[in-house]
Amino acid sequence: MTAYEVIARKRRGKRLTRQEIQWFIRGYLDGDIADYQVAAWLMAVTLQGMDPDETWDLTEVMAFSGERLHFPYPTLDKHSTGGVADTTTLVVVPLVSSLGIPVVKLSGRGLGHTGGTIDKLEAIPGLETALSPQDIHRVLEASGMVIAGQSARLAPADGHLYALRDVTATVDSVPLIAASIMSKKLAAGASGVVLDVKTGSGAILPELTQARELARTLVAVGSRGGINTRALLTCMDQPLGRAVGNAVEVQAALEVLGGGGPRRLVEVCLSLAAELAAMGGAASRVDAYSLVSQKLASGAAREQFARWLRAQGGDERIVDEPDRLPRAAMERVLTADRPGFVTRIDARQVGMAAVRLGAGRRRKEDRIDPGAGIILEAEVGTPVSPGAVLARLRFNHGADVSGAVKLMDAGLDIGEAPPAVRGPVLEAVR
Amino acid sequence: MTAYEVIARKRRGKRLTRQEIQWFIRGYLDGDIADYQVAAWLMAVTLQGMDPDETWDLTEVMAFSGERLHFPYPTLDKHSTGGVADTTTLVVVPLVSSLGIPVVKLSGRGLGHTGGTIDKLEAIPGLETALSPQDIHRVLEASGMVIAGQSARLAPADGHLYALRDVTATVDSVPLIAASIMSKKLAAGASGVVLDVKTGSGAILPELTQARELARTLVAVGSRGGINTRALLTCMDQPLGRAVGNAVEVQAALEVLGGGGPRRLVEVCLSLAAELAAMGGAASRVDAYSLVSQKLASGAAREQFARWLRAQGGDERIVDEPDRLPRAAMERVLTADRPGFVTRIDARQVGMAAVRLGAGRRRKEDRIDPGAGIILEAEVGTPVSPGAVLARLRFNHGADVSGAVKLMDAGLDIGEAPPAVRGPVLEAVR
Repeated sequence: MTAYEVIARKRRGKRLTRQEIQWFIRGYLDGDIADYQVAAWLMAVTLQGMDPDETWDLTEVMAFSGERLHFPYPTLDKHSTGGVADTTTLVVVPLVSSLGIPVVKLSGRGLGHTGGTIDKLEAIPGLETALSPQDIHRVLEASGMVIAGQSARLAPADGHLYALRDVTATVDSVPLIAASIMSKKLAAGASGVVLDVKTGSGAILPELTQARELARTLVAVGSRGGINTRALLTCMDQPLGRAVGNAVEVQAALEVLGGGGPRRLVEVCLSLAAELAAMGGAASRVDAYSLVSQKLASGAAREQFARWLRAQGGDERIVDEPDRLPRAAMERVLTADRPGFVTRIDARQVGMAAVRLGAGRRRKEDRIDPGAGIILEAEVGTPVSPGAVLARLRFNHGADVSGAVKLMDAGLDIGEAPPAVRGPVLEAVR
Repeated sequence: MTAYEVIARKRRGKRLTRQEIQWFIRGYLDGDIADYQVAAWLMAVTLQGMDPDETWDLTEVMAFSGERLHFPYPTLDKHSTGGVADTTTLVVVPLVSSLGIPVVKLSGRGLGHTGGTIDKLEAIPGLETALSPQDIHRVLEASGMVIAGQSARLAPADGHLYALRDVTATVDSVPLIAASIMSKKLAAGASGVVLDVKTGSGAILPELTQARELARTLVAVGSRGGINTRALLTCMDQPLGRAVGNAVEVQAALEVLGGGGPRRLVEVCLSLAAELAAMGGAASRVDAYSLVSQKLASGAAREQFARWLRAQGGDERIVDEPDRLPRAAMERVLTADRPGFVTRIDARQVGMAAVRLGAGRRRKEDRIDPGAGIILEAEVGTPVSPGAVLARLRFNHGADVSGAVKLMDAGLDIGEAPPAVRGPVLEAVR
């Protein structure tokens, strides 16, 4: 077998065997197959596709490429394909674990225009995110939940492949996305996982049909790997909540945990939590939504969040005193220049604007400003008059404010008639 | 503009602009765009194609990537897409130049299973093949023809891209092949070129429809570049002549120049020479074939070959005394094991067998054995009885003879009935 032959077979649209996929990925990790050969192969996979068997084989080979976690009892996990103003993890995990269901959520950092849970957690004073397997077990025992950074030793093949995909325009391939996500879930030892597959202009796969294909592939691969897997298709036409950044998104999560927060964000949180609650056996699928709604209203999830912060070294005082979270020193207010309705808030543009303010990275080595971000004061459909505040940009010295303002201007439209708006949760794939 | 965007556009099947192609290729040569990004792009081009404008833009950008040659009068060139036992250059160039038409043929080395003219020329004692532009002018002045190695400074983008294509399974793409060939012709300053586009099992593009598409693309690109361009589709189902190697192919060319040689090889030589003769104005297209046939029979081309050898430093005594050419010390004879007809001589397998004997390179750094090679004693359709000699393998100590014999056994079939055989020249594309 040669790397050339494996590339050539995929280029010609042939099925790769388990042996070929394993040999190719191992050869890459061992340094025997060059970056440029893997890049050509990734493009061939992106354009020619992979069937369910190939996708599963790739997933399992990647999952077995490094360390694996094991838990003495079933744990659940939740994963999103990447959103803007999407702080659901910080609500859903404590909410589900407040039902007595152990949840171990391993997260990544922000990528492109989308935020990352670990960046958000690092805005919380004291919170540890780089946990060893022993630490993860300890925090889980102490609080019933863990949200931690994913070790590079877990499915290391994914880290290498992802870095190449990111610079070769091969990110948005259904089999490659599915293998990337599910290999990490397999390695992390989850018994069940609920996937939040975004669709719409701000999503990695904007078309509903593609997102649905991804959701089905994820569910198929997960089930094949023995993971109880369900997916919700949710709308990323506009930012999910009102806060885009790190400290501001922690604060937004606290609002939801306190019984407030914007309707669309709350709806997605409850829907994801209900799927997990049903999966964890806390209620039938029919009753799960009302159960998690009650729990959220009761304050149990908020208490659980505080217990978890304590177990993982975070300053739990932020729960009652969110002003303890970092906040950027300066603010720029964007206002409406005409009367009408907000007809478009482009999630991608808003996400990129937040990156310009320091809330995300333009290059891997950039440092995040935890207090920077954007507070939206309107959503799609909100009626506005001239001078009405649309958004507040928070930033510190050195931020590219004019770049951010340009992106916001390009991303927000005001029209004369209220637009049609899709609901936040579109479909379930089980 | 970013490399990512250029890759992504081609991946989505979009037309690339002149600016995008130029920026991308320049960025690669300047080291600003990484090998792996170019590899992904090459795979996207291979699978999504390029339209005539893009192919032309790529060709011209590559042609302008380095030095260019200029001649004070029109010169013609001949190029083959790669054959086995194809020593036509050593016949066609002196034949056409014996008509008073200046011919400057810049050649490469053997690649994969196909032979390269420069490797063959290096079997001739004394002959210089690495000529400076000044040397090329001097030899052309002295003898009316030149056959020299192509400088790496001519269209250097092609050298870099070719090396990547060779290891990423992106060799057999019509636009990439066309841009590779025609960029070098443009840089080399040819006024007219006749292309020998191979088709059949031993060709880079085995299918006739693909080869025809390549021929048409080459003619279109050449014409757009101001080069009078014609192409012949010729058959590479079996080796063209009877000799595969370096010294043995020089000797085969001398046989044809002396009025002998196998019919199929002679036919392709005369057809290519007739195209060039008509292009050079020596005769109408109708009369050109008989003109070159007469010239070949008259011995004028053979005299021209000797004159050229003298001008380029080669030992012209080989013309009358071909035994002065190197010859490997050992010979292994392959014989028929049953009566019947030769039904298949696979050009690719025979070419690879010659490589095993030392006539070509398995790796770039391998040294060629100029005296090694294969003499076929049969062609497809030849009736044989048990024990009849099919081929003679010539080699020196250290050659992989058993590997060569295995390849020959796998490449030669004997059947009960004479097979259908395609003529050597299939179509002209003008």
